[in-house]
Amino acid sequence: MLYSEMNRDMLLNEKNQLEERYNTFKAKNLKLDMSRGKPGKEQLDLSNGINEIKDFVYNGTDLRNYGILDGIESCKKLFAELLDVETKNVIIGPNESLTLMFDYVSQCYSHGAGDTPWSKLDEIKFLCPVPGYDRHFTICEYFGIKMINVPMTPNGPDMDAVEELVKDESVKGMMCIPKYSNPQGITFSDETVKRIAALKPAAKDFRIIWDNAYCVHDLSDDGEKLLNIFDILPEYGNEDMVVEFCSTSKITFPGAGISAVIASDANIASIKKRLNAQTISYDKMNQHRHAQFFGNADGVKAHMKKHAEILKPKFDIVLKHLKNELSGTGTAEWIEPKGGYFISLDVMHGCAKRVGELCKEAGVTLTTVGATYPYGIDPNDSNIRIAPSYPPVDELDTAAELLCICVRLACGERLLG
Amino acid sequence: MLYSEMNRDMLLNEKNQLEERYNTFKAKNLKLDMSRGKPGKEQLDLSNGINEIKDFVYNGTDLRNYGILDGIESCKKLFAELLDVETKNVIIGPNESLTLMFDYVSQCYSHGAGDTPWSKLDEIKFLCPVPGYDRHFTICEYFGIKMINVPMTPNGPDMDAVEELVKDESVKGMMCIPKYSNPQGITFSDETVKRIAALKPAAKDFRIIWDNAYCVHDLSDDGEKLLNIFDILPEYGNEDMVVEFCSTSKITFPGAGISAVIASDANIASIKKRLNAQTISYDKMNQHRHAQFFGNADGVKAHMKKHAEILKPKFDIVLKHLKNELSGTGTAEWIEPKGGYFISLDVMHGCAKRVGELCKEAGVTLTTVGATYPYGIDPNDSNIRIAPSYPPVDELDTAAELLCICVRLACGERLLG
Repeated sequence: MLYSEMNRDMLLNEKNQLEERYNTFKAKNLKLDMSRGKPGKEQLDLSNGINEIKDFVYNGTDLRNYGILDGIESCKKLFAELLDVETKNVIIGPNESLTLMFDYVSQCYSHGAGDTPWSKLDEIKFLCPVPGYDRHFTICEYFGIKMINVPMTPNGPDMDAVEELVKDESVKGMMCIPKYSNPQGITFSDETVKRIAALKPAAKDFRIIWDNAYCVHDLSDDGEKLLNIFDILPEYGNEDMVVEFCSTSKITFPGAGISAVIASDANIASIKKRLNAQTISYDKMNQHRHAQFFGNADGVKAHMKKHAEILKPKFDIVLKHLKNELSGTGTAEWIEPKGGYFISLDVMHGCAKRVGELCKEAGVTLTTVGATYPYGIDPNDSNIRIAPSYPPVDELDTAAELLCICVRLACGERLLG
Repeated sequence: MLYSEMNRDMLLNEKNQLEERYNTFKAKNLKLDMSRGKPGKEQLDLSNGINEIKDFVYNGTDLRNYGILDGIESCKKLFAELLDVETKNVIIGPNESLTLMFDYVSQCYSHGAGDTPWSKLDEIKFLCPVPGYDRHFTICEYFGIKMINVPMTPNGPDMDAVEELVKDESVKGMMCIPKYSNPQGITFSDETVKRIAALKPAAKDFRIIWDNAYCVHDLSDDGEKLLNIFDILPEYGNEDMVVEFCSTSKITFPGAGISAVIASDANIASIKKRLNAQTISYDKMNQHRHAQFFGNADGVKAHMKKHAEILKPKFDIVLKHLKNELSGTGTAEWIEPKGGYFISLDVMHGCAKRVGELCKEAGVTLTTVGATYPYGIDPNDSNIRIAPSYPPVDELDTAAELLCICVRLACGERLLG
C-alpha cells in the first residue's frame, strides 16, 4: 500500500513494526559496507594470473627499462579493439583513469584546450549530469570549476537542458559516464549520443570527459550497447570535443590496473606534448602483464563474464529486497541496471539523509548521502547510491533488508511529521 | 702537450694522426649509445626477484583493491629510513619521481605554494644550476617558467649568485640534484646545504625541488655524504621551502619503480589535498613488491653495492680514456664522480657541438649537446654529458676512445681556425 495513502494510525502501526525489525538488526552489532564500488575478493582472485607474467621483453624491447612514452603497442591494440578506435588514438596511462582525467582538466587549466588557458578566465563552468560520480565533482571543485546540475533521464542527460546551457561561453565542459552511469546504470541512448556529438557549444574549447569506466561491465549476456561517439563526431566537425577515458580498475586490480585515454589526433598531440614533460614512461611492466594475460579483446570479454557471474547474484539480492519491501509503498524508485557497479535508489524527497543515519546507527555504511550531487548537495535529499559489489552475498542479504527497513522507517517518520 | 702551445705544423700533424684514427673507427660502422642514464641489462636483472612477490595482503589489507591514498606504511618506512625523515613526511608516488615533480610544479601553477597561484602572476622565474638535468628544464619550459642559469661550483650551486638572485620576488624556485648532480656528479657541500637552508627569498612561496635522485647511488664504499636539509630548515623557519623527491628508478626498474615525495607537514597536507582529487591510490601492489623485496633500508644499501660493482668498471674505463687521451692537452676538463650516473666533460669553448657531430658521424650517440643547459643553449658550447651505464664494457671501451679522439679533433680544428 502506498504510504501516502495511509492514515496516521496505519503509519504509526507501520512504524512500530518497522522499529521492532530495525532493533532486531541493530542488536546484531552489524558492520557492513555498501559505500564504495570496490570489487570483492573473489573478483580480484580472477586476475591473479597477471602476477605469473615474468618475461618483460616485448618486440625486442626490455620493458623494465626507460622509454615508450605513450604505452606499448600490445596494450594500445587491446584498448583500441575494445573501444573500436585506431591505436594511434590511444595513449596508455597510469594505474587508474581518474588520474588521467584530473590531469586532462589540469592541462586545460594551465594550457587550455583552445587559445586561452582556463586559469586565465574569470569563470569556468562544467555541466554535471545528476546523480553522478562524486570523484568527477571533486576534480571540478579542486580547480574551482562551477558545476551546473543537469538531470539524468532514462536515456542519459537531459539534452534539451544541455543544448541550452552550452550557449553560455563560460560553460567549458561536461563530465559523464555514458555506459552504465554511476550511480544509475543508465546507458546513453543512440539519440543522446548523437545529440551530444552534434552539440554546438559557444565555447570553442568545450570538452567532454567521456568516462567509459564500465565499457565491458555487463551483468549478463544482454548487455547494453553504447554508440561509438568517435564515429559520429567528424560529421559535426567535433572530433576534438570528446576525450574518452577507461581503465582496468574493475577488470583486473583497482589501483594496480592500467588506464587509457582515447582522443582525436589533435588532442593526442597536445596530451603527448604534456607527457613529454611529465614522464619518461608509465609502468610498461604492468602494461605487459595486462596485455599478456588477456591476449586480446575477446580475452577481456571472457574475463568479464566471470566477473558478471560473481556480481549478478549480488545485484539480484539487493533488487529482490527492494522489490519485496518497497514496491507499491511509494517510498522509493530505482532502475534495474544491466551493468556497472551501482544501484541508484531515489527515496521520498527529504528522506535520504535520514535513511543514511538510520543505516549507520545499525552498522550499515552507505555512500555518503548527497555525494552523488555536486558540492554534496542533493537538492531533493532523495538519492542513495548502493554499491553491492564488495560484501559477500550473505552480508548483502542482511544489509539490503536493513536498508529497506530504514527507507520505510524514514519515510514513515516524515509523513508522520 | 697543451694544444694551445702547439704551432700550426704541430696542430696539422696532430690532426692528420687523429683523422686516421677517427676513420678507422668510422669504418667499423659502430652503433653505440652513451646518451641516456639508462641502467644496463645486468643491473635490471638484479631486481628480478621483485616479480616473485605474490602475496598482496599487508597488515590485513588486500593491496589489490582500492584505498591507501598516500602509500603503504612499509614503503613509507623504507624511504623514511633511507632519507632520515619521519614517515608522516613521506608520500609514496607513482612509477617515477619525474611525474611527482611535474605535478608539484603544476600544483604551484594552479593553486600556488602561498597565497597566489603562479598562473595568476605575470612572470615566474626559476634558478637552474648549470650544467643540469634536461628534464628539469623541460618542466619549467612547459609551464612558461623563465630559467636563470646559476653556475655550479665543486661545492654545488654558486651560493653568492643564488643569494643575490632570490632577492627578486618573481624568482619562485630552484630545481637541483643535491647529491651526485646530473651531469657533474657533484654533492653539495655542508656549507652549501646550510646556505640553501638559510636563504631568505623575497618570494614567500619560493620552492626548491630537491631531486635526490642519486641518494644511495655510490660507486664505491667511500661515497659522499649529503647533509639532511630537513634537519636544518627549521632553524631558519624554512621548513616549507624544500620539497624532496626520489625514486627507485635506478634501484629497481626505470619506469616501473616507486617514487616518494618528502616534505614538511604543511606541504604534505597541501599535496594530499590535491591527491584526494587526483587519485584513489597509486599502485600499492608495486609498492608492496618493493617493500618486501628490500625489507628495509639496509636491504636497499646492499642492493646498491651490486649496482656499483657493475657500474664502477664502466665509469673507470671512460675515465681511463679521458686521462690517457686528454690529460695535459688542455682540450677538456672533468670531475671523477663518486656516484650517480654521469661524467661531465667540459671541452674547449666552442667545440662541444662539433664533438657531438663527429661522434654521431662515427656511430656514437651522446646526449644532445646543449641539453645540459636551459633552452638547450650552452653559452660556452662546452659541456658534454657522458652516460656510461647502458653499453657493455667492451662497447664503452670503443665509444670512450672515439669520444676522446673527437674531442681532440674538434679542438684541433678550432685552433687551426
